[in-house]
Amino acid sequence: MVDQTVNVTLTEDTKQKPVAEQLEFGRVFTDHMFIMDYIEGKGWHNPRIVPYQPVTLDPAAIVFHYGQTVFEGLKAYVTKDGEARLFRPEKNMQRLNRSNERMCIPHLDEDVALNAIKQLVSLERDWIPTAPGTSLYIRPFIISTESYLGVAPSKTYQFLVILSPVGAYYKEGINPVKIAVEDEFVRAVKGGTGEAKTAGNYASSLKAQELVSDKGYAQVLWLDGLEKKYIEEVGSMNVFFKINGEVVTPALNGSILEGVTRNSVIRLLNHWDIPVAERKISMEEVYEAYEKGLLEEAFGAGTAAVISPIGELSWKGEQLIINDRVTGSVSKRLYDTLTGIQYGTEEDPFGWIEKVK
Amino acid sequence: MVDQTVNVTLTEDTKQKPVAEQLEFGRVFTDHMFIMDYIEGKGWHNPRIVPYQPVTLDPAAIVFHYGQTVFEGLKAYVTKDGEARLFRPEKNMQRLNRSNERMCIPHLDEDVALNAIKQLVSLERDWIPTAPGTSLYIRPFIISTESYLGVAPSKTYQFLVILSPVGAYYKEGINPVKIAVEDEFVRAVKGGTGEAKTAGNYASSLKAQELVSDKGYAQVLWLDGLEKKYIEEVGSMNVFFKINGEVVTPALNGSILEGVTRNSVIRLLNHWDIPVAERKISMEEVYEAYEKGLLEEAFGAGTAAVISPIGELSWKGEQLIINDRVTGSVSKRLYDTLTGIQYGTEEDPFGWIEKVK
Ligand SMILES: Cc1ncc(COP(=O)(O)O)c(C=O)c1O
Ligand SMILES: Cc1ncc(COP(=O)(O)O)c(C=O)c1O
Repeated sequence: MVDQTVNVTLTEDTKQKPVAEQLEFGRVFTDHMFIMDYIEGKGWHNPRIVPYQPVTLDPAAIVFHYGQTVFEGLKAYVTKDGEARLFRPEKNMQRLNRSNERMCIPHLDEDVALNAIKQLVSLERDWIPTAPGTSLYIRPFIISTESYLGVAPSKTYQFLVILSPVGAYYKEGINPVKIAVEDEFVRAVKGGTGEAKTAGNYASSLKAQELVSDKGYAQVLWLDGLEKKYIEEVGSMNVFFKINGEVVTPALNGSILEGVTRNSVIRLLNHWDIPVAERKISMEEVYEAYEKGLLEEAFGAGTAAVISPIGELSWKGEQLIINDRVTGSVSKRLYDTLTGIQYGTEEDPFGWIEKVK
Repeated sequence: MVDQTVNVTLTEDTKQKPVAEQLEFGRVFTDHMFIMDYIEGKGWHNPRIVPYQPVTLDPAAIVFHYGQTVFEGLKAYVTKDGEARLFRPEKNMQRLNRSNERMCIPHLDEDVALNAIKQLVSLERDWIPTAPGTSLYIRPFIISTESYLGVAPSKTYQFLVILSPVGAYYKEGINPVKIAVEDEFVRAVKGGTGEAKTAGNYASSLKAQELVSDKGYAQVLWLDGLEKKYIEEVGSMNVFFKINGEVVTPALNGSILEGVTRNSVIRLLNHWDIPVAERKISMEEVYEAYEKGLLEEAFGAGTAAVISPIGELSWKGEQLIINDRVTGSVSKRLYDTLTGIQYGTEEDPFGWIEKVK
């Protein structure tokens, strides 16, 4: 067993922290980062916290050519009382390993990885912004570093964790967005890499996203790659529809990401005795419900926005206006409860919060 | 128009060249590399040849997280008379731009890129190995370098070219390989990124490749992602079947790569009046032809191997033994002609050769 003590080298040159109003998403990074190396035969070793610094790789490193890489995304929040905390971080570590499995990347010890994250967040405690809705975004990722142009899994890797203070997703309160249903481009298909959190899925989404942004839509809603019929997910969120009193979300089918927020939403709905179903759902079904006046709410669910109500859905030239473009009551309740648990203004009945000392 | 003169900085420390027998694929790189930068608003600029050196990027660089990257692969050959030459390099530059288009990466001037490659190859002229079947592999690639965790196209890029002397693909003469038809994993689907030469397609292929290598197969034959019925391509080669006198290859359908070798094979077959068809072809059809004794040859076609005869195809538990595991006459003729044109022992009736001074 390789020694897993994290070696810490502090920076001599701390950066200025951004002011709350200027916080964006993912542009500013903290003073330190975590790194750990992997070499075939030796395993993961040399966990260390170092000053935030560039990554130096051979130009033939596999990550540049064949994209063998995985990542995660979670947040650290601070309560009124100044307590730093994570939301279900063990779920992210489990998903990281599921992604590793699909991408032929060696497993990480989930406790080692989570402790590294907690130690780094603890060191960067003062970087967690305190204004309402702000947080410290945590980006763990693994890159393949072997210098080799053959198409084969790398024999060496680096696991890194970087931190970015991020602004409130909703600057003026939770607000419904416009989403376009995508029926030309495909994000993922069963047997592909859709259920892994890996670079290629996001690279393939850029084009569709670019085309719809030009038309004023926030994101695309992906349909299944086979028949372009069944609903998959939205950009970097899972998606839910409330139809005639029941909340429906696409079942995990091998091509969508299993979101931590998705899972939390389902748990909360069950807890509240609101009917919820994980199943195949087609765009036709959503449209029919809409025509009959039964499409009550629609929303995305993901770490960045928590809950993102959908006010308008564009599909085959039709505009479906949902709940008069107003945030629905279930969407609102989910948003308030989840953020309440995260920021410590609500009870945490499920033990979802992990404190960082 | 930005100045496009290539600035050259020579290394002070030349490496030892590997001996011919020890040459592998893509492990050793030459003394210099080419780099050019892109910044939104300014365009591509600062083309330069520098000593081969690491790439230094912020850990938040988009390429590490969202895999926005494209690449190409071609070779420089040297004739008996010591003339260095490329094979249809303009095709690779055109394909690079098609890949750029799909991946939201700014276009490159194809002449600028090709001239850069020629200038670099010319400088590294002595690195082109001369033993039969050896060559200098050229890897142009573009990486997204902006430090930003939002899922959006990068505003900055680098275009790099690295060179690797490579050994003969067939050490003991051209030899048929064993290929496994893949019916669980999917490489690409129409609407996805399959026709672009981008990292994610290769990352997604690793798992299937790993599983079949363990069983003694060289590569997988991919089927379409929709019905797992129609043939797509093999690892990093396009695929051809000779059935009852006619050569058939899958039509370009949006999910396979348009190979330069594929195009050259079709041109040669036409030139020789051998019937050739680009169309949908199912694994059932190949199997039926096999059962009737009409499956005469099968081969992959790509830059690395040129022509790779398939001696055995494994599908749903059946082993199809093709042409008694011997290289077929059309496969052999294509291999001899293409390598003959490349190495200058045959006429070049199509003007495929581009000399490097
Ligand atoms: C493709 C995709 N789907 C869904 C999600 C939502 O997952 P989570 O709730 O774990 O953030 C994300 C974001 O992580 C994502 O990238
Ligand atoms: C997926 C794929 N298909 C086909 C090919 C063959 O293309 P080319 O003949 O241009 O080398 C390659 C190799 O470049 C490839 O990576």
